[in-house]
Amino acid sequence: MPFELRPIGHVVANASHEDLRYGRAVSKIVIDHKFAGGLKGLEDFSHLYVLFWLHEIPPRSQLLRVHPRGRSDIAKVGVFATRSPHRPNPIGLTLVKLLRKRGRTLTVKGLDAYDGTPVLDLKPHDTRDSARRPRVPEWWKKLERESKRARQNEHQ
Amino acid sequence: MPFELRPIGHVVANASHEDLRYGRAVSKIVIDHKFAGGLKGLEDFSHLYVLFWLHEIPPRSQLLRVHPRGRSDIAKVGVFATRSPHRPNPIGLTLVKLLRKRGRTLTVKGLDAYDGTPVLDLKPHDTRDSARRPRVPEWWKKLERESKRARQNEHQ
Repeated sequence: MPFELRPIGHVVANASHEDLRYGRAVSKIVIDHKFAGGLKGLEDFSHLYVLFWLHEIPPRSQLLRVHPRGRSDIAKVGVFATRSPHRPNPIGLTLVKLLRKRGRTLTVKGLDAYDGTPVLDLKPHDTRDSARRPRVPEWWKKLERESKRARQNEHQ
Repeated sequence: MPFELRPIGHVVANASHEDLRYGRAVSKIVIDHKFAGGLKGLEDFSHLYVLFWLHEIPPRSQLLRVHPRGRSDIAKVGVFATRSPHRPNPIGLTLVKLLRKRGRTLTVKGLDAYDGTPVLDLKPHDTRDSARRPRVPEWWKKLERESKRARQNEHQ
């Protein structure tokens, strides 16, 4: 039996692909009138998790193993070991910084969702959501190092 | 238009309510045969996010403001400012420590989901999912202090 979700709002973003990817984008989340009452007190948190529907991915993706970030030089791993948008349930999860709340519009930094993305949920972030020294595989570290270098090169 | 989700597995837990709540429970997640291929490489991460369906909550909860943890002495806030299970889309999100992976069974620590809970997704956790010093409201800190005291009193 499938479970049903409904959007609670949507993303308004006009940042570049790079800014979205590197967590630099400032975006807006507009919550539907119907759910605006759920925002009370959100402004007391500095950081939120945004859960969103990866609406550009074909529904019911059958991919279970992917090259991380589409990189054919890195061996395929299971989708649950990646943050790939290709997953059985296409839910995106991103930690953002809450910059502003005005009525039912939130301004956030760090959301990697495209313009028009349906938002499913917002949850406050706390230290209990963080591991102190998480262990990650070598391929993950390699990709992180490359991203860091790419960001640095942009400024040269 | 609603979005449809399908379970990828389920939780096997026999911990007490307190152990679940305080993050001490050791539980199993059994992934369905069909999705087992997505687990490859998961064992290289120490921590995972588990997304699950809060199946004991009446579907389409209309609650938008709640007393945090049902405490009537704390003023109501919006559901998006809480981790309450009563939310428009009843998706739970918990960071767990991956203790073991054997076939399609994961043993995890810290999952606060009841036995039989449908699992929707697993995502690797990395430092980019953590804010360094998240700001949280006073009521949140008060509840955290109380939980801490309750845990300490158990051992006296």
